[in-house]
Amino acid sequence: MLKRSETYTVNVGGVEIGSAHPIRVQSMTNTDTSDVNSTVDQILELYDAGSEIVRVTVNDEESAMSIPAIKSKLLQFNSNIPIVGDFHFNGHILLSKYPETAQVLDKYRINPGNVGGKGKFDRNFEQIINLAIENDKPIRIGGNWGSLQKTDLDKIISEKQDSNNTVDYSKLMRNCLIDSVISSAKKAEALGLAANKIILSCKTSNVSDLIDVYTEVSSICKYPLHLGLTEAGLGRDAIISSVSALSILISRGIGDTIRVSLTPDSQKSRSEEVQVCQQILSSLGIRNYKPKVVSCPGCGRTTNDYFVKLSKSIKHMIDDNMGQWKKKYPGVEDLTVAVMGCIVNGPGESKHADIGISLPGNNEDPHAPVFIDGKKFKTLSGDNIEEQFIDIIQVYIDERYN
Amino acid sequence: MLKRSETYTVNVGGVEIGSAHPIRVQSMTNTDTSDVNSTVDQILELYDAGSEIVRVTVNDEESAMSIPAIKSKLLQFNSNIPIVGDFHFNGHILLSKYPETAQVLDKYRINPGNVGGKGKFDRNFEQIINLAIENDKPIRIGGNWGSLQKTDLDKIISEKQDSNNTVDYSKLMRNCLIDSVISSAKKAEALGLAANKIILSCKTSNVSDLIDVYTEVSSICKYPLHLGLTEAGLGRDAIISSVSALSILISRGIGDTIRVSLTPDSQKSRSEEVQVCQQILSSLGIRNYKPKVVSCPGCGRTTNDYFVKLSKSIKHMIDDNMGQWKKKYPGVEDLTVAVMGCIVNGPGESKHADIGISLPGNNEDPHAPVFIDGKKFKTLSGDNIEEQFIDIIQVYIDERYN
Repeated sequence: MLKRSETYTVNVGGVEIGSAHPIRVQSMTNTDTSDVNSTVDQILELYDAGSEIVRVTVNDEESAMSIPAIKSKLLQFNSNIPIVGDFHFNGHILLSKYPETAQVLDKYRINPGNVGGKGKFDRNFEQIINLAIENDKPIRIGGNWGSLQKTDLDKIISEKQDSNNTVDYSKLMRNCLIDSVISSAKKAEALGLAANKIILSCKTSNVSDLIDVYTEVSSICKYPLHLGLTEAGLGRDAIISSVSALSILISRGIGDTIRVSLTPDSQKSRSEEVQVCQQILSSLGIRNYKPKVVSCPGCGRTTNDYFVKLSKSIKHMIDDNMGQWKKKYPGVEDLTVAVMGCIVNGPGESKHADIGISLPGNNEDPHAPVFIDGKKFKTLSGDNIEEQFIDIIQVYIDERYN
Repeated sequence: MLKRSETYTVNVGGVEIGSAHPIRVQSMTNTDTSDVNSTVDQILELYDAGSEIVRVTVNDEESAMSIPAIKSKLLQFNSNIPIVGDFHFNGHILLSKYPETAQVLDKYRINPGNVGGKGKFDRNFEQIINLAIENDKPIRIGGNWGSLQKTDLDKIISEKQDSNNTVDYSKLMRNCLIDSVISSAKKAEALGLAANKIILSCKTSNVSDLIDVYTEVSSICKYPLHLGLTEAGLGRDAIISSVSALSILISRGIGDTIRVSLTPDSQKSRSEEVQVCQQILSSLGIRNYKPKVVSCPGCGRTTNDYFVKLSKSIKHMIDDNMGQWKKKYPGVEDLTVAVMGCIVNGPGESKHADIGISLPGNNEDPHAPVFIDGKKFKTLSGDNIEEQFIDIIQVYIDERYN
């Protein structure tokens, strides 16, 4: 349905990225990379949640040294998930000094804004690209408007101030970001890195800028693009901004791998990043990860909130069982269950779903018809509607997906 | 920036809806409408949260009778927010029997799927349209794929089953939904209702269908469109699907008023619907409702989570004060504050923001430079960085927006 913008295919540790392949979900650890056990635990958690690639910061010697141990522990757990090293400032030094790390990592992410100042950029960049070529590794040239070359950024800020805010700051900044990424990719190719070893990203923390930047980049090159709204912030607002940006770009065929960056919340697991990515892809009809529960928002017709309780139970049933179901019932992730609160949209929505129940609203007949594959199957009533409906779902899954 | 699809302008109780006006945020109560006090309380809560129009179900005689009392209580609280009556099945009867209700409501929402079965549709529909004309009220013709005419829906389901699932069910359903809405609007115009008294909606519970349906409807008529993903379900998944659908449509210039329908959560206020709508519009750069906090997702460079604590404090500061700030500091909703965790994107992102702080990551110098309008303003250190930074924000707001 969705026509993807054509790109090269880049192989990252066995996971192929590009328009000929599914959009990949990524995430990043926030443990101290030199703490091998915590980092391995978090990578496994992200992997179990469905992250297809995990990035870890490699910010100092200790973390560079720990990469081989992390990789071998992961392999002990039969987890061959690709690991990407995130480098800033000292990537050329760390990758040269720790050849095993350079060899074990599945991709190097480098940031053109801090590979080195203007005088040192070319030398440091060449050093990293040569290591990528020697080790046969792909790179991501990851630009970020928060880490443009300091001289470039300060120049743009001065222009803005000197012009008394009349220049289009956002446009200058976007052009600078795009130039830094595209010119670095061309340099890497000139140094001998194959075009199908390069992925680009160009992150901003502002949705409209992000859309403009990626639309432009996608139109001028064929490198696969990694999408993400950077520094999206906290909680629900950050989720909304990220979903907004990524959905629009994906709907335009742009984006081959995605990450949602959320400021950590001690009450939530890091794998929320992965779940949000999956739900975006599922919303857009690209790929389902678990059965969908359709339920209504309620109104003055449904002041008894039994339908809320029932839809929560069905959602819990799915969450609790999905680990097992994935293995036992291939295709179950495409199931839709409707739990509806009144006669207005209840029967119709239940018929559209694979299985649906239309509970009675206020003053309606106290019976709940159940529909399967568009046809009325049975009418439930009494005190144990929930148990009966759960049984019906279980039988349906068992018959259809076994 | 965003080019809206051109529509007529419809006036709903003083709030103008259409492409020449801002996209309006709506919501709907879930109290029993005949319970006047609870309904007024919830309308006021939604209004305070920023809902520009509120819909209430008018499902029976008691609720129809209570509308004048609801309206007059709202006026006592100086709240002249437009109230829309949501009618299904018996709208023609209730609006005829309770003329004061018909006169007090600011819009009638009718559902072409249940105005009456095929034999009765025309008569009931004409009765409602005549009442709208007499009372000079706009209507919304609100189609929903969960409440297509039963005979139409069953016919589509049979076609699907008879064809052994080879027909494009989704397309048949979309066409049926669009036809029902467009043909009803034409009928209303033929009965004498002005074109600028009609708003349309065509809701489905599936994002791709919703996008296709609204794209088609927008291309064939000039009635303003009310957007919403129906029966989106519970919690975060429902928010993501709704944001995904609405963002894509709005980015294409489609949609003049929006609602996000969430299955109620006893731990959350109904006004979450409104907040999600506002955050969509704010993400897309269309309209801001409160200052934005930019903060990073953290990584192995920021295992000390002080930046998380500080960004939460700033967010709380905003939430706690926004009620007052709105009145005292016009324009403060456009402020951006960055709270960043390390040297990689910290200074850059802080310079892009109006005010930003770049906290030290692991092993960085324990000082936190603060940037104002792109220039370094001061460097904070010690135990009371939070208090100092909050003071700086307060002074900045006071100087810039007073």
